[in-house]
Amino acid sequence: MKNTPSCNIGIVGATGAVGQELLKLIFARSFPFASLQLFASARSAGKTIGVAGQKFTVAEARPEIFENLDIAFFAVDGALTRSLAPHAVKAGCLVLDKSSAFRLQPDVPLVVPEINFHAVRQHKGIIASPNCSTAVAMMGLFPLHRAFGLKRYFVATYQSVSGTGVEAVAELDAQVRAYGRGEALTKQVYPYQIAFNVIPQVDTFNADGYTGEESKMMLESRKILELPALKVSATCVRVPVVRAHSAAINAEFERPVSVAAAHAAIAGFDGAQLVDDPAKTAYPTPLDFSEKEKCGVGRVRLDSALDNGLSLWVSGDNLWKGAALNSLQIAERMLQEGLIRPKTALAAST
Amino acid sequence: MKNTPSCNIGIVGATGAVGQELLKLIFARSFPFASLQLFASARSAGKTIGVAGQKFTVAEARPEIFENLDIAFFAVDGALTRSLAPHAVKAGCLVLDKSSAFRLQPDVPLVVPEINFHAVRQHKGIIASPNCSTAVAMMGLFPLHRAFGLKRYFVATYQSVSGTGVEAVAELDAQVRAYGRGEALTKQVYPYQIAFNVIPQVDTFNADGYTGEESKMMLESRKILELPALKVSATCVRVPVVRAHSAAINAEFERPVSVAAAHAAIAGFDGAQLVDDPAKTAYPTPLDFSEKEKCGVGRVRLDSALDNGLSLWVSGDNLWKGAALNSLQIAERMLQEGLIRPKTALAAST
Repeated sequence: MKNTPSCNIGIVGATGAVGQELLKLIFARSFPFASLQLFASARSAGKTIGVAGQKFTVAEARPEIFENLDIAFFAVDGALTRSLAPHAVKAGCLVLDKSSAFRLQPDVPLVVPEINFHAVRQHKGIIASPNCSTAVAMMGLFPLHRAFGLKRYFVATYQSVSGTGVEAVAELDAQVRAYGRGEALTKQVYPYQIAFNVIPQVDTFNADGYTGEESKMMLESRKILELPALKVSATCVRVPVVRAHSAAINAEFERPVSVAAAHAAIAGFDGAQLVDDPAKTAYPTPLDFSEKEKCGVGRVRLDSALDNGLSLWVSGDNLWKGAALNSLQIAERMLQEGLIRPKTALAAST
Repeated sequence: MKNTPSCNIGIVGATGAVGQELLKLIFARSFPFASLQLFASARSAGKTIGVAGQKFTVAEARPEIFENLDIAFFAVDGALTRSLAPHAVKAGCLVLDKSSAFRLQPDVPLVVPEINFHAVRQHKGIIASPNCSTAVAMMGLFPLHRAFGLKRYFVATYQSVSGTGVEAVAELDAQVRAYGRGEALTKQVYPYQIAFNVIPQVDTFNADGYTGEESKMMLESRKILELPALKVSATCVRVPVVRAHSAAINAEFERPVSVAAAHAAIAGFDGAQLVDDPAKTAYPTPLDFSEKEKCGVGRVRLDSALDNGLSLWVSGDNLWKGAALNSLQIAERMLQEGLIRPKTALAAST
């Protein structure tokens, strides 16, 4: 019973890119639930969504929806999350949040289950999942950190448009189709055309010239790896890829490194799949790591500009490991370890 | 007369991506020539090419073509360059080469005119232009090097398919059009689909795990900047962009840096255009820097992981500054400074 409790679960933001993946994954992974409810903004309320032969009607995400829920997967923006999550916590519903709203709050664990699952035990009702590009980078860096002790890293990202949302996926699609028909390309979501272009801006700019996405990579890496002095410099770039983010990383370590030891560390890590055979033109690409649970790690080499340094390349699904899958994996493992007690079970035991 | 000599010039590789740009630029910039001849492989010989209302017939590039030429712009691969260039040198025809064949040879100047034009004076018949991604990166790094003294840099590139050649441009075009028609995407040029994907491989792999393109960035940077101990670590990545390469750079300097001083240095450098105003969403993109003489530099910020460090972003036309334009600029300035004497002038003076 401990391993298959019957929770009442909900998805807040079920019509968005991450919400849709949550829904698919809940069924694909046979996540154990007694009831599943879908919520979204008032605008999407009333829509029906079909999955696995069942139909669900989307209800408006309002403060009172959490009364009968055990777990709410939050997949909406920071503002809506900040307004709704406290109601969930008050109602005793665990919030598994993909937004940035609470990630850096000291009393909110920021968790990648393969890396710092232990942190969930400190939760006070909210557990956050990292930013999508941070999550993907972590899957390459953590096994190397465990082997050699991470001191500093430089990263340049190649981020897919699905990280922005369904409207950005539609924009790239529309631009590419317009090109094929010989028509003018129009834009609304991004400040520049994204088809046949790259845009060196993800998120808004901070005063220091870094973007929000770039500073998240630094701050979230420090929290997840429990390395408060970790030095990180990121450049986050949007590319005309539909799905899966990639990252080129130069990482500096405390201890001597070797490619063989790095390969062994990556291969021995649950969250990563080593794809690294230059002779066979084998390395990860975002297309190959779309809708994959693990992130691909390759191009591992001794860094030519760092002592104890490694260069590497990571590709991983921003909607899965970068969002929906990570939240779901947290819930799965918490259920397995008896860290979530459904309200019905609590009611029965009192 | 010194400023407008009448040279007999030729393009070796006139039907390729760089050759076509050379031809366009020669007319667009009114490059002073007495005669212009186009050469290519036997396969392309006999083709006619129209430009500026004139028609040119392409002849086969053979060892004897250089007898009456003063300047040969080489825009072919390394192997053909290695076999033909010595014949040009022997015939007293200056070779301006875009290939990698001779770039690192000690007696061949590797020149970006805005950076190290003085090096041309040492030429022994061949002057090389840098690799396209190196050239673009240099346009951002050189002004900063001049201001602060470059010690080390990390770079991740976003390279367009035209860097591979016209057949790669056609492949991206065909894949995108097939997508628009709902057909299967096929590939021949790249080992992976390039539409909606990125490929972390440019050139072949060395034993150390870096690619040829990546080691070129290190070795050519050292030669151009005359910094033999410069540390460079590059990751070179192909992206589904038709034209213009971009680079995310983390650079470490000898002396203290500031964004204001960096901006002043970039703005004061001939080869760069500063586009850096986050409040106005202003930064360079490859689309905006296609068919532009200058390379765009932006996203300049104090690097969060380096002492005396700056992060920056550069976009520049790989076919222009990265190849054709650079060769042409070398020739233009050499003619202006009287460093090329046409054979006809030499004959007249004897």
